[in-house]
Amino acid sequence: MTEKLLPSDLTFSGPFPRLSRRLRLGIVGGGRISVTQSTAARLSDYWEIKAGALSSDPVKAKAKGQQWYLDDDRCYSSFEEMANKESERDDGIDAVMITTPNHLHFDAAKVFLEAGIDVLCDKPLTNEIDQAVELIRLTQQTGMVFGVSFVNTAFPMIRQAKAMVERGDIGKINQVHVEFMQDWMMNEDISQAEHVKWRLDPKKSGSTSCTGDIGTHAQNLATFVTGLPMTDILAQMHVCGAPKALEDTVIMMTKYDNAIPGTLMATRLASGNRGGLRLRVYGDKGGIEWDMEYPERLKYSKFGEADRVLTRGQGGELFPQVERSTRLARGFSEGVLEAWANLYTEFALAVAARKDGLETPHDWLQFPRVESGAAGVRFSDATVESHQQGGQWVNCELKL
Amino acid sequence: MTEKLLPSDLTFSGPFPRLSRRLRLGIVGGGRISVTQSTAARLSDYWEIKAGALSSDPVKAKAKGQQWYLDDDRCYSSFEEMANKESERDDGIDAVMITTPNHLHFDAAKVFLEAGIDVLCDKPLTNEIDQAVELIRLTQQTGMVFGVSFVNTAFPMIRQAKAMVERGDIGKINQVHVEFMQDWMMNEDISQAEHVKWRLDPKKSGSTSCTGDIGTHAQNLATFVTGLPMTDILAQMHVCGAPKALEDTVIMMTKYDNAIPGTLMATRLASGNRGGLRLRVYGDKGGIEWDMEYPERLKYSKFGEADRVLTRGQGGELFPQVERSTRLARGFSEGVLEAWANLYTEFALAVAARKDGLETPHDWLQFPRVESGAAGVRFSDATVESHQQGGQWVNCELKL
Amino acid sequence: MTEKLLPSDLTFSGPFPRLSRRLRLGIVGGGRISVTQSTAARLSDYWEIKAGALSSDPVKAKAKGQQWYLDDDRCYSSFEEMANKESERDDGIDAVMITTPNHLHFDAAKVFLEAGIDVLCDKPLTNEIDQAVELIRLTQQTGMVFGVSFVNTAFPMIRQAKAMVERGDIGKINQVHVEFMQDWMMNEDISQAEHVKWRLDPKKSGSTSCTGDIGTHAQNLATFVTGLPMTDILAQMHVCGAPKALEDTVIMMTKYDNAIPGTLMATRLASGNRGGLRLRVYGDKGGIEWDMEYPERLKYSKFGEADRVLTRGQGGELFPQVERSTRLARGFSEGVLEAWANLYTEFALAVAARKDGLETPHDWLQFPRVESGAAGVRFSDATVESHQQGGQWVNCELKL
Amino acid sequence: MTEKLLPSDLTFSGPFPRLSRRLRLGIVGGGRISVTQSTAARLSDYWEIKAGALSSDPVKAKAKGQQWYLDDDRCYSSFEEMANKESERDDGIDAVMITTPNHLHFDAAKVFLEAGIDVLCDKPLTNEIDQAVELIRLTQQTGMVFGVSFVNTAFPMIRQAKAMVERGDIGKINQVHVEFMQDWMMNEDISQAEHVKWRLDPKKSGSTSCTGDIGTHAQNLATFVTGLPMTDILAQMHVCGAPKALEDTVIMMTKYDNAIPGTLMATRLASGNRGGLRLRVYGDKGGIEWDMEYPERLKYSKFGEADRVLTRGQGGELFPQVERSTRLARGFSEGVLEAWANLYTEFALAVAARKDGLETPHDWLQFPRVESGAAGVRFSDATVESHQQGGQWVNCELKL
Repeated sequence: MTEKLLPSDLTFSGPFPRLSRRLRLGIVGGGRISVTQSTAARLSDYWEIKAGALSSDPVKAKAKGQQWYLDDDRCYSSFEEMANKESERDDGIDAVMITTPNHLHFDAAKVFLEAGIDVLCDKPLTNEIDQAVELIRLTQQTGMVFGVSFVNTAFPMIRQAKAMVERGDIGKINQVHVEFMQDWMMNEDISQAEHVKWRLDPKKSGSTSCTGDIGTHAQNLATFVTGLPMTDILAQMHVCGAPKALEDTVIMMTKYDNAIPGTLMATRLASGNRGGLRLRVYGDKGGIEWDMEYPERLKYSKFGEADRVLTRGQGGELFPQVERSTRLARGFSEGVLEAWANLYTEFALAVAARKDGLETPHDWLQFPRVESGAAGVRFSDATVESHQQGGQWVNCELKL
Repeated sequence: MTEKLLPSDLTFSGPFPRLSRRLRLGIVGGGRISVTQSTAARLSDYWEIKAGALSSDPVKAKAKGQQWYLDDDRCYSSFEEMANKESERDDGIDAVMITTPNHLHFDAAKVFLEAGIDVLCDKPLTNEIDQAVELIRLTQQTGMVFGVSFVNTAFPMIRQAKAMVERGDIGKINQVHVEFMQDWMMNEDISQAEHVKWRLDPKKSGSTSCTGDIGTHAQNLATFVTGLPMTDILAQMHVCGAPKALEDTVIMMTKYDNAIPGTLMATRLASGNRGGLRLRVYGDKGGIEWDMEYPERLKYSKFGEADRVLTRGQGGELFPQVERSTRLARGFSEGVLEAWANLYTEFALAVAARKDGLETPHDWLQFPRVESGAAGVRFSDATVESHQQGGQWVNCELKL
Repeated sequence: MTEKLLPSDLTFSGPFPRLSRRLRLGIVGGGRISVTQSTAARLSDYWEIKAGALSSDPVKAKAKGQQWYLDDDRCYSSFEEMANKESERDDGIDAVMITTPNHLHFDAAKVFLEAGIDVLCDKPLTNEIDQAVELIRLTQQTGMVFGVSFVNTAFPMIRQAKAMVERGDIGKINQVHVEFMQDWMMNEDISQAEHVKWRLDPKKSGSTSCTGDIGTHAQNLATFVTGLPMTDILAQMHVCGAPKALEDTVIMMTKYDNAIPGTLMATRLASGNRGGLRLRVYGDKGGIEWDMEYPERLKYSKFGEADRVLTRGQGGELFPQVERSTRLARGFSEGVLEAWANLYTEFALAVAARKDGLETPHDWLQFPRVESGAAGVRFSDATVESHQQGGQWVNCELKL
Repeated sequence: MTEKLLPSDLTFSGPFPRLSRRLRLGIVGGGRISVTQSTAARLSDYWEIKAGALSSDPVKAKAKGQQWYLDDDRCYSSFEEMANKESERDDGIDAVMITTPNHLHFDAAKVFLEAGIDVLCDKPLTNEIDQAVELIRLTQQTGMVFGVSFVNTAFPMIRQAKAMVERGDIGKINQVHVEFMQDWMMNEDISQAEHVKWRLDPKKSGSTSCTGDIGTHAQNLATFVTGLPMTDILAQMHVCGAPKALEDTVIMMTKYDNAIPGTLMATRLASGNRGGLRLRVYGDKGGIEWDMEYPERLKYSKFGEADRVLTRGQGGELFPQVERSTRLARGFSEGVLEAWANLYTEFALAVAARKDGLETPHDWLQFPRVESGAAGVRFSDATVESHQQGGQWVNCELKL
């Protein structure tokens, strides 16, 4: 008899069910972001961390593995070895998170997909668009689940924003402004630190730094909430701070759905901005505004009425899909880890459904897939193209 | 050779170390708060949930245990059984969280302390002061670790506030105002719901409802940050909303250290207030203000200078003990679960130290102990006394 | 033919009309507050400043009068002289503002009332309740207009709050919290400055300082918005800062309409609070919150719905009586001077109506009258009584 | 003996002096903005309104003049007549405010300059750049005072921002973002109202609507605070809402001083934004942020330190030139009328100085002059040029 993970009476709507067991997760990459993500996975309670490829040095790999209480024999010194060994175990990992520097994402993801292990990959998905497209193809071919960690789409109030826009609460959209303002790179010491340096090295980070790292978050968030494709951009990349090989700031005009105007900018030198991912969408009936530094508040202004501030866990005005993405009663704050746990929850349910031979509707499990990751890569490429042409409009859609 | 949990070179200052294994936690009580707390325990990564007394009905107990992926034979139908069985196992639980209705706290805690299992108990500690005092005595006699879940003391910015007050940043304190404003009890349906009803039943909740439930949070927070004892109160209890057996609102004047004036109030009927635990402390050099609905901001106003807004993960102006209580980089929000995970982290280290035969300094592990819990019980009693006397000043200190 | 000031077709509702001429105002007292008030009077455009008793030294009186571009012969060295001379002139002042230290209010007001000149008097109305009662009597007897400068009732969003409460938007009120938190007295130099010192001198300020000065603002605001009488208080007065003859802080429990509980506090030592007059009113359907530091925002929380932030000049959700109290289009901020100008506008219309022999309804001209001033004096007295009795409930209503 | 307006011992620094008499102001144009501006002039207490050209219909002109209590014989039906008559009177107006639709600014201003009457003109200065340049020439030739009502430069906290940038508080500027977001034009009825319609009529409003009206405010504010010229723009104009002859939204990339990147946008369709003029300037040491909806707060973030919130009237951290631009004690809010009154105060002192034959330093009287107005006209023209070229970089400096 085959193991069944999901309850048999599941309707793919409503609250998320418990599985018959926790899923087993492996980690490729052992940096800070893998700590954050594994914390989120554990918080979701759908996962236990069971294997890791945390260093190419076997001694270091084991030492690092102890941080996750991994068994020694599941601390691998390469992801290939991990994919091989884990896929052969009866209690092998169900999925892997890939959190290496960007240039290694493709090789790692390919190996696991081919080994029949579902993948949750950090963003940007790849440095090369061909690799991104290849990952889409491989995902389709293998039928595996491929998530991408655009975590911001998993904030409850972002889910609320998306649903309100769909319902027509702001009417026909006529402009979209999104920005991601940070300031940590003003600290020269941090910029030169080992765990950061690769982000400014074109060999590892690709042809962009700020754009791929945080500009793509902005692009992903805006398209997720509006439900509109970003079709065209006119971009300029800047080194505003100390000299460096890649841009620290990017500014662009944008078009959604070929016509609706907008702006997008991202920088790491805006003193006083820490997690300043801010989205503003205006339509002919109203507008919504959201700021990741206050992720639990969604400002909704229906024209001619008082501004409303919607809050997670409020009841009455929130959609069911928002309520199922919250853990605590109203007034008890949640943050980024809880959003990330939402992503791991939905990813787990998609993995479980695949194993159970079921399809899951995307409006129930809204986590970003490989296609969103590839769209981000195309967005970065288009940014570079527009910039190199001295500021021309460039189509930024991924044409498969 | 005995198992050692803590690293041998630990200095009891600085960042929190990993243990040689995760500790094993049991749950008594199976309501909402136990879900929240076990999520926090898991988030801390110092604990795995291994046993539970989740219902007096054995069938229900096992069904509930599946929610935590507990083994069937560790789903008990009484806490006595759980204490007995777990204390005999080689892989028995290291500690237990008690999250039953208030009137059961004492019996449960006593059983586990006597079984050599450390305890983290929900607040209010007990309904009867004698029981609270007895728990202090038992804790001292057994040498066990006894934590109380006054979670608000574990917010990073509250740790910062305490340290700033200690350093003299606001000078000599001259007034202290604290309040806990909620509104959920305006919903009559919720007030009558099964999981809430006991809070308004004197047999289970004791002689107070709002005071013991959230007033004690306010009292605990104010004394934690100021470092001053609350010595006197003049209180009135009110039923502001629909008729009920216990108060939904409490208002009082307070004195700290016999002289410094203040106010404390708590209500569940203040529409628009969800988690409005707010502390304001003013001294002759400056003031601090904090609001749990925005837990990551600490307002600091040095008189004659611009207001400052200190933020978690900011660097430069934060104390080391604050930095070690954070998980994410600046700008990526944390919330109540992260604070609760801080409490579980510190409780774990205290448990590990006890097992390793070590003393841990309270300025390193700042989680609330049984004495804070007992102080809260005395505070509730004093509130009732002052109220029944028609509003007289009553000493509210716990005299042992 | 007699001069008519108001238009003949006036309906005493809707927008405020222009008068046939500006009214003429005199000033008694020449301190800072008279500058502020005369600025507001000018801003209203219903008044021109024409005479002053600005100093008992004739030379200084004239020098000060030049600041207001007064004619030399209308710069008086006593208010008695001013009342006599002005009441004899054809172009004599229509009304006088009294902004002396508190202990002189009564004598000045009496002289002008008896001279047939309408009065707008600073608060607290008097230091002695007998004098306050006598001013009520004199006002009734003479039929003169007597306004008191409780300016906060004239903020547009306070008018909105009052109207919403009346309409039942928050349901049946069940608690009322009001506070006035300032910090300027932390500056010892300012406390000792000439223009401040009298506020701490019982001979001039009366038996209270902070209570009469700002506590009465809180009392007045809460009763204005709720429409409820404050009937009972239990108060304690404190000297929290440097030693001084009168209190710098007052804390009290309050009852409205004999039963509804509340709190009121006022202090000048709360670092970081500049104009922290804050009102919170909660009922069984919702709540409102207002903060004078952000006077243009009114938070309205209907239970079960998203919080709303109402804003002056917004349209749609605001009452007509609010719109007529604003000057600028939405988004262009107004402040305290504009509120004060509202008070001067309404006072002018009442003066004009009296001269034209008309009655004006109080729901059209909502400025505070002598009765509100007297209620504030009784409130201060009751505060002292309760304090001196060691904290007993005292009825604080003015019984005439 | 000639009349002297300014005190003889004036040092042109420090607080603003009183004049020996109020100056006399005339009004050209009788719409809403003239009401606002004359209120501000009166609030400043440096002016009295004495004449007006409020309608070309003599009957209407007189009727409107009664609103300002003007004498009948000083209610003119043309500005030419007003300039002629007033310049011949002994008590003629000292200056005129011009608040007509844009296309009439030039003719009116010219007539008054040539009549020896100082001018304060609404913005945009003119629709045609040639006319703007001619006004500069005329101003220089006649030696008259010519102010332009870019009122936002007169907010105290904007003065503070400018002074902080000059002192180097934020280091070397590396990016500048400014926007003016409004929403009132979402209301179709208002857009078609008589007093608004001209703003969308190219014959009266010129070749832009939103750009000239509010985009120029953004441009002026950014250059005032940074002290940098805006040299290049790449702009797109949009009709986001209902069809109309001129743009309702403009978006651009900008360069300051030929190299420093930035963004500028303006729209009237951003629901929930009422007076959303927001400036953000970042340098290598820190950043400042300001929002006209909260004009009294200036956020200053020195990198590595807690954010500071500077407030008008705070003392200690504010420049003297800020303090002299405030009227009320700390905590008592000021708004747009007070800023406008600052502009009228400084304009009055410049007029008085000219009449007294004195030069006044621009760092003492910081109100915008004709050159700032002309720079705004060039900015609008450059916007149209860049837009018509399909989004090319265009130099936007005014080259004389």
